[in-house]
Amino acid sequence: MASFDGPKFKMTDGSYVQTKAIDVGSSTDISSYLSLIREDSILNGNRAVIFDVYWDVGTKKSEWSLSSVKLSTRNLCLFLRLPKPFHDNLKDLYPFFASKFVTFVGVQIEEDLNLLRENHGLVIRNAIEIGKLAAKAQGTLVLEFLGTRELAHRVLWSDLSRLDSIEAKWEEKGSEERLEAAAIEGWLIFNVWDQLSE
Amino acid sequence: MASFDGPKFKMTDGSYVQTKAIDVGSSTDISSYLSLIREDSILNGNRAVIFDVYWDVGTKKSEWSLSSVKLSTRNLCLFLRLPKPFHDNLKDLYPFFASKFVTFVGVQIEEDLNLLRENHGLVIRNAIEIGKLAAKAQGTLVLEFLGTRELAHRVLWSDLSRLDSIEAKWEEKGSEERLEAAAIEGWLIFNVWDQLSE
Amino acid sequence: MASFDGPKFKMTDGSYVQTKAIDVGSSTDISSYLSLIREDSILNGNRAVIFDVYWDVGTKKSEWSLSSVKLSTRNLCLFLRLPKPFHDNLKDLYPFFASKFVTFVGVQIEEDLNLLRENHGLVIRNAIEIGKLAAKAQGTLVLEFLGTRELAHRVLWSDLSRLDSIEAKWEEKGSEERLEAAAIEGWLIFNVWDQLSE
Amino acid sequence: MASFDGPKFKMTDGSYVQTKAIDVGSSTDISSYLSLIREDSILNGNRAVIFDVYWDVGTKKSEWSLSSVKLSTRNLCLFLRLPKPFHDNLKDLYPFFASKFVTFVGVQIEEDLNLLRENHGLVIRNAIEIGKLAAKAQGTLVLEFLGTRELAHRVLWSDLSRLDSIEAKWEEKGSEERLEAAAIEGWLIFNVWDQLSE
Amino acid sequence: MASFDGPKFKMTDGSYVQTKAIDVGSSTDISSYLSLIREDSILNGNRAVIFDVYWDVGTKKSEWSLSSVKLSTRNLCLFLRLPKPFHDNLKDLYPFFASKFVTFVGVQIEEDLNLLRENHGLVIRNAIEIGKLAAKAQGTLVLEFLGTRELAHRVLWSDLSRLDSIEAKWEEKGSEERLEAAAIEGWLIFNVWDQLSE
Amino acid sequence: MASFDGPKFKMTDGSYVQTKAIDVGSSTDISSYLSLIREDSILNGNRAVIFDVYWDVGTKKSEWSLSSVKLSTRNLCLFLRLPKPFHDNLKDLYPFFASKFVTFVGVQIEEDLNLLRENHGLVIRNAIEIGKLAAKAQGTLVLEFLGTRELAHRVLWSDLSRLDSIEAKWEEKGSEERLEAAAIEGWLIFNVWDQLSE
Repeated sequence: MASFDGPKFKMTDGSYVQTKAIDVGSSTDISSYLSLIREDSILNGNRAVIFDVYWDVGTKKSEWSLSSVKLSTRNLCLFLRLPKPFHDNLKDLYPFFASKFVTFVGVQIEEDLNLLRENHGLVIRNAIEIGKLAAKAQGTLVLEFLGTRELAHRVLWSDLSRLDSIEAKWEEKGSEERLEAAAIEGWLIFNVWDQLSE
Repeated sequence: MASFDGPKFKMTDGSYVQTKAIDVGSSTDISSYLSLIREDSILNGNRAVIFDVYWDVGTKKSEWSLSSVKLSTRNLCLFLRLPKPFHDNLKDLYPFFASKFVTFVGVQIEEDLNLLRENHGLVIRNAIEIGKLAAKAQGTLVLEFLGTRELAHRVLWSDLSRLDSIEAKWEEKGSEERLEAAAIEGWLIFNVWDQLSE
Repeated sequence: MASFDGPKFKMTDGSYVQTKAIDVGSSTDISSYLSLIREDSILNGNRAVIFDVYWDVGTKKSEWSLSSVKLSTRNLCLFLRLPKPFHDNLKDLYPFFASKFVTFVGVQIEEDLNLLRENHGLVIRNAIEIGKLAAKAQGTLVLEFLGTRELAHRVLWSDLSRLDSIEAKWEEKGSEERLEAAAIEGWLIFNVWDQLSE
Repeated sequence: MASFDGPKFKMTDGSYVQTKAIDVGSSTDISSYLSLIREDSILNGNRAVIFDVYWDVGTKKSEWSLSSVKLSTRNLCLFLRLPKPFHDNLKDLYPFFASKFVTFVGVQIEEDLNLLRENHGLVIRNAIEIGKLAAKAQGTLVLEFLGTRELAHRVLWSDLSRLDSIEAKWEEKGSEERLEAAAIEGWLIFNVWDQLSE
Repeated sequence: MASFDGPKFKMTDGSYVQTKAIDVGSSTDISSYLSLIREDSILNGNRAVIFDVYWDVGTKKSEWSLSSVKLSTRNLCLFLRLPKPFHDNLKDLYPFFASKFVTFVGVQIEEDLNLLRENHGLVIRNAIEIGKLAAKAQGTLVLEFLGTRELAHRVLWSDLSRLDSIEAKWEEKGSEERLEAAAIEGWLIFNVWDQLSE
Repeated sequence: MASFDGPKFKMTDGSYVQTKAIDVGSSTDISSYLSLIREDSILNGNRAVIFDVYWDVGTKKSEWSLSSVKLSTRNLCLFLRLPKPFHDNLKDLYPFFASKFVTFVGVQIEEDLNLLRENHGLVIRNAIEIGKLAAKAQGTLVLEFLGTRELAHRVLWSDLSRLDSIEAKWEEKGSEERLEAAAIEGWLIFNVWDQLSE
């Protein structure tokens, strides 16, 4: 039975994000995890799913391939490390991302959306670049060009020292701290979206 | 004789939507159903047809193929499950969608319009992305990026708990409840359009 | 001698539109009809020609081919049903549409202009999408996305019941009623243009 | 010696336009005529040359070929009927149109510029679509979409009955009346430009 | 030693422009001239280099090849006539134009930039179309579409009779007068830029 | 152990920039330097990395290849001279530039981003053209078109004589002075960004 039984991290407002990191193998059933993400998004999160994607970069753009996917809701963070080549069970990702049930929210995702479409045929029909929205909504041009941390800083003004301390020494950090940073980033953008979409 | 003799669902304003779900076979006559949709659109619905399309997704964008089509008016909801490969009787869909008699209204349809055009040669000459219109008409940027449910929520403020309860547990639901969700979504967007186009 | 000797239809303001529907054969002289359209446009119609095009749709966009052309001025409506393949006498259509003497006015013609250019090499140098103009001129966003009937409804507020009654039961109607609908639509857009261009 | 020894036409303000129509042969020296046009443009016309191009239309866009060119200044109108295929002496047209000494002013020339570039490699580096400028300068949207006559009508309010009488019965007119219409159109746009650029 | 030892021309404000016209051969060292241009631009000219390019036009766009380059600063004007085919010493032009040390300012250069990039692989990373800037900065639409002389006329209101007298009779002029016109044009645009960038 | 043990340059505000210029060989470990840049960016610099790229230009755009990369933070300036062809150790550059941890800030980088993407498959997901931002943020159009020096001059009004003196005589300068100019330019843009993003 799918459950988010990975580390639980405390956010700066006292709430917790439950995580699950999965090394996806050929027999891993990711569909039940995706269902839980969607359910939490619908019931607790205004139908937003925060996503980020990570790449094995090649020296030609056509050689870039998707290595990991992160999906966050208010309380959950799913981190999928993908095999190469893709297994059949990864086909569940395609309708999940194509769904119009939820809005997929990301930071600086323009290139990602192109790469997903061109290199993997993966289409997100309902995606939003949150920096552009923030820039327009708040009338602050620079928001369009910031990364996750700075964007959250300008919109939420929350304490980001934990995130900074992990990312500044990224190479020295272990997988749990990296997962914590991923969870914090997802949670931050969830809250940015929550505030902007009110 | 074509008739919408599928389940009838009650909407939150007390009105009913009559549905018809059809597994299109090689001898199914869909043209008479399309005529009823157009007639209802012209006589009862300000010439708007709400549409949504569903895809068999492939791992290349060129492999995506149309699996279902939903067409809604104020009172009717037609759900066509399409065969693969397409039968000749599906050719009726092309002039229907190409017609300028009605406006085809959808949510987050930009990618859909591209896929229809490129993968199936299907051109909708008079289509509107309702989220963009809503965003401009109401001066609320975020409306452009929402899915059906959230868009309807911001424009209509109607009770959406029934839709949420079905879509949150989508995998566990049977075909009738899924049809009900489709009917509700079509009806919601019909009402969003009705309000925006006044 | 070319003359508009087809049915004459009464419009809602009491004026009449004289029509001519032609099944174009290899020996049909369409040039004299085109001359009459241009002459009426110049002398009675502020040099506007309302046009619409109809397609034999194929399952690839490159297979679409032009099946009919409608040209309207204030008092005339010419409906040309085209042969397949095109005869030499249809070459008169090309310079007619390329002329800058008049403005070609249409509704939702963006895809049509692309198809004409790509599939037939037919270029309209002076064409206008009237919905976009109406939307800007009247500051009403939704006008850009409407079909002929709704656009006319919002701009002219004339009685459209005759048009609705024909188009709602399109499949049951004979060719004269369909021609009447075509004439009404052309006359409506002529009047929309007349009002907008004042 | 090059001179504009064709018919001289009286415009509605009492001034005259001197014309020259040339059937360009392999030994025709067009360069001296082009020099006179440029000289008149520089000395008497704020460095504007009004141009229009005419096409032998084909059923593929790539088959369209330039058949005539019209060049107008305040007092001159040069009409070149081009041979097919082009002779070497037509190479003078290329640097003439590429020059930045003058501004080339036209009506509804977007498609023309594309065709010139793609079918003939002819690039006009300093061209202006005067309808767009007029629409912005006067805040009247519809000006962008008008042909020469209507544009001049809205900007200059001069008497256009002579032009109308020729163009309405175009097929019945001889070459001198057609040349007169061309001269009037060039002179009108010259005056529109003169007024807009003040 | 490189020096601008060509004719020195007096401008309308009493200042002088020193020129150098070079027929570039296989052993010509153009790099030292380019260095002097850059030095003058940095020390005396707010890091602007005014440029213009001239083409051997072909009947296909891909056949156009660069024939001359003009580079101007406040006090200098370098005119390079290029050999065909290019010699190795012309490779110095590429990093010069690619440099971000200075801003390359031109009039109606959009097509030129495309041609440079496509036909010669020459990329100007920091180029500005001064007419567009002038139009926006001064709120005068027509400035975007003017050639050098008219643009300077509207911005600077200086005496342009010398330039007019040369360019009106261009074919009759010798190389020194043509060089003078080039120097005047460069100097004018330098001053337009100077005024706009204040 | 990686350290910035190159020349230390004093900036006009009295602070110092520590530099490191590396001729990257096949065994050079650049990853530790990149880590230091990122760390300094996160801890001392609002997560901005100022970058510039330099090219071996070819006569076709596809022949351009990256020759050097400059990365600056508030206190550090890393200058990498790249080998041709690239060694494997340069693969560290790809994820560094693809990272969303920081914002990559540059001047006139539009062509650079295209060249990086097309010629090297190098994608910067979070890049900003600072001139465009400055132009919008300060309402001064011309800022979009300036090079580093002029942009800094208009935003910071600091003393730029040292930079001018090096760049005006660039060919005569040795590598240390050129490195100083690179460090000054990076530091200037860092401060422009700092001011704009406040």
